[in-house]
Amino acid sequence: MTATIIKGLPVANVIREELAAKAKELAAKGIEPKLAVILAGGDEASRVYAQAKGKVGEKVGVKVEVHIRPDDVKEEDLLALVDQLNADPKVHGILVELPLPKHIRKELVMNRLDPKKDVDGVHPVNRGYLLGGQEHLALVPATPLSCIELIQRSGVELKGKRVALVGRGDTVGRPLASLLIKRDATITVCHTKTVDIGSITKAAEIVVAAAGSPGLVRADMLSPGQIVIDAGINQVGDGIVGDVGEGAAEVVAFLTPVPGGVGSLTTSIIMSNLLKAIGLQGLA
Amino acid sequence: MTATIIKGLPVANVIREELAAKAKELAAKGIEPKLAVILAGGDEASRVYAQAKGKVGEKVGVKVEVHIRPDDVKEEDLLALVDQLNADPKVHGILVELPLPKHIRKELVMNRLDPKKDVDGVHPVNRGYLLGGQEHLALVPATPLSCIELIQRSGVELKGKRVALVGRGDTVGRPLASLLIKRDATITVCHTKTVDIGSITKAAEIVVAAAGSPGLVRADMLSPGQIVIDAGINQVGDGIVGDVGEGAAEVVAFLTPVPGGVGSLTTSIIMSNLLKAIGLQGLA
Repeated sequence: MTATIIKGLPVANVIREELAAKAKELAAKGIEPKLAVILAGGDEASRVYAQAKGKVGEKVGVKVEVHIRPDDVKEEDLLALVDQLNADPKVHGILVELPLPKHIRKELVMNRLDPKKDVDGVHPVNRGYLLGGQEHLALVPATPLSCIELIQRSGVELKGKRVALVGRGDTVGRPLASLLIKRDATITVCHTKTVDIGSITKAAEIVVAAAGSPGLVRADMLSPGQIVIDAGINQVGDGIVGDVGEGAAEVVAFLTPVPGGVGSLTTSIIMSNLLKAIGLQGLA
Repeated sequence: MTATIIKGLPVANVIREELAAKAKELAAKGIEPKLAVILAGGDEASRVYAQAKGKVGEKVGVKVEVHIRPDDVKEEDLLALVDQLNADPKVHGILVELPLPKHIRKELVMNRLDPKKDVDGVHPVNRGYLLGGQEHLALVPATPLSCIELIQRSGVELKGKRVALVGRGDTVGRPLASLLIKRDATITVCHTKTVDIGSITKAAEIVVAAAGSPGLVRADMLSPGQIVIDAGINQVGDGIVGDVGEGAAEVVAFLTPVPGGVGSLTTSIIMSNLLKAIGLQGLA
């Protein structure tokens, strides 16, 4: 058996069309959606990656400006940049590219963002809206939201399904757990201290791998008929691999690829969050 | 077989002794811990209940002042009271008794609290610290934290255990899920849309009932050897009953009673949060 591969790009294209239509409406009201990206340090590849957001932005009608700072940027200067962007009424969203240089306290930078401009949902207030069931007020982190969009827009019903979520990190796993619970899935959260993860993943109808560990979910931990969402994005050598191991496509019914799956949606979700942010700011 | 009953009061007494020692240290530094309780509307019973906190406070060295407002209190007046207590340096914690009168928007009142004085962890920032893995910065809601204290101080190990959590509400279920994940339990979150809850509860090592539905977890959904924590506090007639049904004590190994279990700890946990709040405010 060979699984049907759920590709991200077709879903991303549908989302982008919706966004372009909304951005046009905003433009008619005189609002020019603008995203500020902060890139502190990083190599040439990460600069290319940050600037690639500009291309997606062009397609959907969002202006993207990238603020590049050197590896040895002072923490106070980075915080001052956040303050400046928070205060700038022409900037509707702020994305801080990770990882930050090691001498920068990540929590301090994240917690400094205006929650209403926090398009990757990293500020405690946005996390809190998620946990507190006030998702309508929240800007939701992009990768977990991408998983949800990929599942739902592929026509997969979450309600009442048993979902094994492998991973409990603060970037993907825990926020994703809240989103899945809200959508009526029955989730089991597995992690490094879980005894016999395979018995849990095998018994589920949907498996979401979000541990950030290459090949952690092996083919022998999966069952026929399952839907498997691979949210892992792990750099191995020059390539990107997921958390689902080789051979999974020979076992399960549906599988998202890496690259080309969840990761293909995240930039579009950031743009979607930007338009939601404009609403939360009371501008539209 | 008859289960061992895990009573709340002995655990509460241990916690209160610890708190009294800490409050004495604070007093030596000239800090008099003070909790403000807001009670809007409610019947005679709820007034008695609110004022009962004063008695626990006396035992542990915390001054409790109850602010009673009538059933028809204006929302703006309630918000003004919150602002006044937020600004009062002599008040270290604020507890808003629920339910509020129906014409008051609960979210508005909760979100108005100074997060550092929010001793029942209802503000989005405190929820967000939980979901984001910054528990050290959080004031954690009292009932979920009471469940954790009752489990851990009874010598039950959470690490690696399979826990069936029945309930996904914003007061107990979802915050408790975060606390359990953080403590290395492998949790499955069950709710009204879950198919065959009994098969999940039966397979767990620990069952936590936190749905707020009298007797929802029936004895036939439990297994020998299990530890069952009943976080349900349901008013039925003149009495209080839990979420675990009759006969459970004949099946499982350990069971918390209602009343006399989780609920016996919550006021002590509020006081514990108050002392943590003093630390978060940079006063001690």
